[in-house]
Amino acid sequence: MQTSGKQPLYRDETAATAKRVEDLLDRMTLEEKVGQLVGTWAGHLDGFKSIDDVADEIRDHGVGAVASFGWGGAVDMRLEEIVEDVNRLQEVALSETRLGIPLLFNVDAVHGHAYVAEGTAFPNGLGVGAMWDEQATEEAARITATEVRRSGAHQNYSPTCDVARDPRWGRTFETFGESPYLCGKLAAAKVRGYQGDGIEDRSSVVATAKHFPAYSEPARGEDAAPVEVSEYLLRNVFLPSFLDTLDEDVESVMPSYNAIDGEPSHGSRRYLTDLLRGTLGFDGSIVSDWGGVKMLHNDHRITTDHRESVRQTREAGLDIASVDAIDHAENLVSLVEDGEVAESVVDESVRRVLSQKFRLGLFEDAFVDESEAKDVVGSETHREASLDAARESMTLLKNDDLLPLDDDADVLVTGPNADDVVHQLGGWSVPEDDGTDVVTIRDGIEGVTEGTVSYEQGATINDELDVDAAVDAAEDADVAVVAVGEPWYLHEFGPSVDTGTDPDEFPNRHSLSLPPAQRELVEAIHETGTPTVGVLVTGRPLIVDWMAEHVPAILLAYYPGTMGGRAVAETLFGENEPSGRLPISIPKSTGHLQTRFNHFPHPTPIGQEEHPSSYDPLFEFGHGLSYAEFEYGDVTLSESTIGPHETTTVQVPVENVSDRAGSDVVQVYVTNHASARVTPVRELRGFDRVSLDGGATATVAVELAATEFGQVGADGSRQPDAGEYSVHVGEQTVPLTVETTYD
Amino acid sequence: MQTSGKQPLYRDETAATAKRVEDLLDRMTLEEKVGQLVGTWAGHLDGFKSIDDVADEIRDHGVGAVASFGWGGAVDMRLEEIVEDVNRLQEVALSETRLGIPLLFNVDAVHGHAYVAEGTAFPNGLGVGAMWDEQATEEAARITATEVRRSGAHQNYSPTCDVARDPRWGRTFETFGESPYLCGKLAAAKVRGYQGDGIEDRSSVVATAKHFPAYSEPARGEDAAPVEVSEYLLRNVFLPSFLDTLDEDVESVMPSYNAIDGEPSHGSRRYLTDLLRGTLGFDGSIVSDWGGVKMLHNDHRITTDHRESVRQTREAGLDIASVDAIDHAENLVSLVEDGEVAESVVDESVRRVLSQKFRLGLFEDAFVDESEAKDVVGSETHREASLDAARESMTLLKNDDLLPLDDDADVLVTGPNADDVVHQLGGWSVPEDDGTDVVTIRDGIEGVTEGTVSYEQGATINDELDVDAAVDAAEDADVAVVAVGEPWYLHEFGPSVDTGTDPDEFPNRHSLSLPPAQRELVEAIHETGTPTVGVLVTGRPLIVDWMAEHVPAILLAYYPGTMGGRAVAETLFGENEPSGRLPISIPKSTGHLQTRFNHFPHPTPIGQEEHPSSYDPLFEFGHGLSYAEFEYGDVTLSESTIGPHETTTVQVPVENVSDRAGSDVVQVYVTNHASARVTPVRELRGFDRVSLDGGATATVAVELAATEFGQVGADGSRQPDAGEYSVHVGEQTVPLTVETTYD
Repeated sequence: MQTSGKQPLYRDETAATAKRVEDLLDRMTLEEKVGQLVGTWAGHLDGFKSIDDVADEIRDHGVGAVASFGWGGAVDMRLEEIVEDVNRLQEVALSETRLGIPLLFNVDAVHGHAYVAEGTAFPNGLGVGAMWDEQATEEAARITATEVRRSGAHQNYSPTCDVARDPRWGRTFETFGESPYLCGKLAAAKVRGYQGDGIEDRSSVVATAKHFPAYSEPARGEDAAPVEVSEYLLRNVFLPSFLDTLDEDVESVMPSYNAIDGEPSHGSRRYLTDLLRGTLGFDGSIVSDWGGVKMLHNDHRITTDHRESVRQTREAGLDIASVDAIDHAENLVSLVEDGEVAESVVDESVRRVLSQKFRLGLFEDAFVDESEAKDVVGSETHREASLDAARESMTLLKNDDLLPLDDDADVLVTGPNADDVVHQLGGWSVPEDDGTDVVTIRDGIEGVTEGTVSYEQGATINDELDVDAAVDAAEDADVAVVAVGEPWYLHEFGPSVDTGTDPDEFPNRHSLSLPPAQRELVEAIHETGTPTVGVLVTGRPLIVDWMAEHVPAILLAYYPGTMGGRAVAETLFGENEPSGRLPISIPKSTGHLQTRFNHFPHPTPIGQEEHPSSYDPLFEFGHGLSYAEFEYGDVTLSESTIGPHETTTVQVPVENVSDRAGSDVVQVYVTNHASARVTPVRELRGFDRVSLDGGATATVAVELAATEFGQVGADGSRQPDAGEYSVHVGEQTVPLTVETTYD
Repeated sequence: MQTSGKQPLYRDETAATAKRVEDLLDRMTLEEKVGQLVGTWAGHLDGFKSIDDVADEIRDHGVGAVASFGWGGAVDMRLEEIVEDVNRLQEVALSETRLGIPLLFNVDAVHGHAYVAEGTAFPNGLGVGAMWDEQATEEAARITATEVRRSGAHQNYSPTCDVARDPRWGRTFETFGESPYLCGKLAAAKVRGYQGDGIEDRSSVVATAKHFPAYSEPARGEDAAPVEVSEYLLRNVFLPSFLDTLDEDVESVMPSYNAIDGEPSHGSRRYLTDLLRGTLGFDGSIVSDWGGVKMLHNDHRITTDHRESVRQTREAGLDIASVDAIDHAENLVSLVEDGEVAESVVDESVRRVLSQKFRLGLFEDAFVDESEAKDVVGSETHREASLDAARESMTLLKNDDLLPLDDDADVLVTGPNADDVVHQLGGWSVPEDDGTDVVTIRDGIEGVTEGTVSYEQGATINDELDVDAAVDAAEDADVAVVAVGEPWYLHEFGPSVDTGTDPDEFPNRHSLSLPPAQRELVEAIHETGTPTVGVLVTGRPLIVDWMAEHVPAILLAYYPGTMGGRAVAETLFGENEPSGRLPISIPKSTGHLQTRFNHFPHPTPIGQEEHPSSYDPLFEFGHGLSYAEFEYGDVTLSESTIGPHETTTVQVPVENVSDRAGSDVVQVYVTNHASARVTPVRELRGFDRVSLDGGATATVAVELAATEFGQVGADGSRQPDAGEYSVHVGEQTVPLTVETTYD
């Protein structure tokens, strides 16, 4: 190929991306190509790498992707250093490599830019699920994209498409709950927010749908254990949320760490190429989860060494090996040289990487501006948006006429999660509070009440502190707010500073009940006779059976983010109307697992009459109390019979019969009366959030498309399923027929 | 076809079975054919049917199969009536139907002929698993076949091939435990015992491998809930035990009640025809589980009505609809007449049914002899065999120098399972003790000890009785034997007289701990300071963490059968050496489920060092203490490298270093170092039971065939998997290589 003497074609901003890619690809050596397919890190992972080390890797090996901030062990947690290091490394890439290809930085900004002290943390996944609000979810993601991009990163390892299947799993808090439908709608909203109108927009980032194809139902709830589910579940529980993100043209997909049907995703051509690229038509980049390549030999034992793992991931269809770095690059070069991996396979992956870098505009402007970053990251507007999200997520589980509190109530605030920034943010956030500006529950209550506020921590997560002092303070207060739950953790339990290394210490994967120290604090406070509100700051649905029986009010706050304490306080005092709805069932005991609203019907061969209910939660999916009171008028369908590619509109008049403004979430469930395969007893297929002043009425309309409540077929498409259905809204059920078309 | 004027060909005993079948088939009307494909019952099921009612069904509809005894709601539980009714109904079939085709009687004699008061009950499934003894298992099945056949039945709905996967499942006690290998070997032994040298032998019965293809891992442990496992698990966990029974030419297979991959087995052509008949080459009869046909519309909702369910089961490949009776027959006739089911499909099923009836010799002799039945059923020889089996099953979980007891110890016997015939036999046995002759634990101890025996029940399963009296008696005794555990139940919990209808009452599917009343009895006895032995009479592995920590000795007796109390007593007093080994892991808590020795390895993405163990049982699979003490010499392999179709022999010298005779079970586990798919951390692949006098040594040899520790491929065959392995015996590990052959 000919190039001009002055400027190579690939540097011509006006040229088509595909032409720029081919031009650049043609100039690259094998080593340079392979460099674009590996990423490295700065910080503590397998040993420590400094920014200098990374600079060397870029200079010497042409490494194309870097994670120097935005994750737990990153070298940088403060904005000023982040920006400085990003610019420094981009300078190395541009000036000290032969072709000057800019770097792609990636981050784990899964619930806001929360691994940056100054960044805006939104509620973690389960709290977002509780909002049942696509629009707000998209806006939060848009804000996150802006903060990420302004601080120098281009790809966000989010959203999670994982559907919560086992509350023991330590990543449950990252999911949007147990409804495949809700998970899909919110994951899609996140992709829209991250990618905006496309990654050509300088406020957009590459979104990464994860963890493909199924991760969230590991054996024993143990992170990264095999997900040995049927194809039917794979298609109808795990794939739908990916389909929704693919519909939004998600730019990247990340395989899961675990094996499915015996095959670890990272090494599976069946999943990555045949299913994802073939059946589902994905044409973006496939980026490994961090240790995903080495795990094939170290843990899964499906290969014998790293080189063979590299070969297998390339055969499977992996494009970028996130932190596999130089070892991966060297093995891949050797594999191509030995003819074990075709260079065309490498070329295809490089095309995808370069295309993203061109479209991101990195060849034109790879640098970030410190003052611009400071203006954007953690701005007041962003904090307000985070507060709005937290407000919507607040889920009132129980309220025996205690809430809302009087404006002038004297309050005792107690519990390990009442005034702990790190616990409140939860995992995938800075693990220390240095430099953060987070409103804790204690802060929030102090800011909201006109009464006096006392504070006694009372307990840590696992140990009692001065319970007597808390009891004394409770006796002097009008009301006690006890904030209990879980600390910060990632994946499994144990590695964090909070959880220690004792596998029997809470939280761990086999306990879903509060540890004795917290339970005893709640009991002691409750026994004073002072009305007690339990606030749950937690990533998983904890089994709070004792509280549910004894404590008059329980508010589930999830991990509510930067402004979460304010949202809790406003909710307790009635300045915010609780309108979160459970996106996951809260089980009665671990022996009741799995407790899911959308379980399958089945025979009861003996004792049909006496058979205990299959769905018997402590608090059910979709539950959430309001201070306002809503009544539904008659549910109607615009069409009671539709064709397989038609829609019907569910309409229901909703009246706020109280004198308070409030919000409700109308939930539409569908039951299939007879299908070729067993279908859930009910499945969520639509919802809408409605806000009404006291006494006001609105008619909520939810569209139901026949394809959306059919099944996902072997071809990966949503197929309508002709037959008789019931549509359930509140206590009402109306019939719906989907007709077959003969064509 | 021409027939002789005197005797039709099908009545000619000397003619080939195939010819007799074709001759008879040619003579049959559609209604007569269809009659052979349905069964009926006498007793309480969907309403009550008397023997007269059944006689009418035979006369009017030509019903071909009957269950009038040998199950829970049967009209007959006593031998004399059983024999009388069988003969009466056969007489109707022979004399009052046009072609005089004899009836096939079927029974649920799953652990001996236990639904007949006089019959010999062997230990239930999990106790058989604890024996690790193929020979004894085969002999017990042979005895059962004889008792069944002499009392007039011809098909036994046994063995279960189900592998225990969730101890909450109410049919766990019917399984041989959690090892697919052990389950397969013992299921095959049962087939050999039931079918002997073939069903032409008048002491043999048709064995029924069940429940195909996968039943035992229902969601939430809830009986008949979907088993939504991967194909890989289906092939490598659930199919192997069926393969072992097919290798023994099992005559019949029963589908599972549940759905797998969305498809209820009874209506699945994929499982019954494509997989079972096609891939696996089965050519016997497929017989429905009881309500299996109607459940397709009533529960699974994959059809809209009974007629459509009949059509679907016929399309799937079902031969006999067990108790679907007249409704099924009438629907099937109508379906054939309307062209919705081909008559050839009916003919093919009728051929299978008639072939079995001819080969069973029913056309020559359909009747049974009462005195012959009385001589055989529950004979002394059979009771002795049952005692031998129970002895071998006794599994000593813990023994802090308390056992064996002194011959002259004064013993308090207490607990709800110390003297209860029905609890001791467990499910699939007579639900009342009338007419039984069972040795309870109390009886057994009274028969063994030279000391005095006192008895106070102390508690029922769920309620305290006179605990003080038990405590007083304990204070006067040298030792207290507390027999706790579970009552009689079937499938799920609730329907039996013992368990009541309260879903929160033990046993239920979400509790694996002893109920408070039993736990408090044990604690009260233990607190007297009198040394206490806990005896667990239970179908499932109960979480006895408190007992494991405090009580000095625990003996797991399972449901030990007719002579079980004697076996317990002999074991406690050292007349029997405990040699049972756990065929299933006992978990630490329900939050630790599923606790399986053969789980898969997997990555631990974060905190690899601190990660709690994946296998963390209260008592591990294979565990079981002896009074004798065994030491293993060096483990060797006859070949350390074998081809894919070769075997190697594991040899280990076992020395009884104590001065007592005893038995040990040598367990051989195999680990695959690298395979194309993830393989278990270890899998049981061989075992042998060895009995040694004190001081004696023997070399145990266990054959390992490469095919047996490969994987089951998509073609349903066991495929060797070339590569490096570790073979584990006791604490020792030796390497083994399986080579690829290039052919």
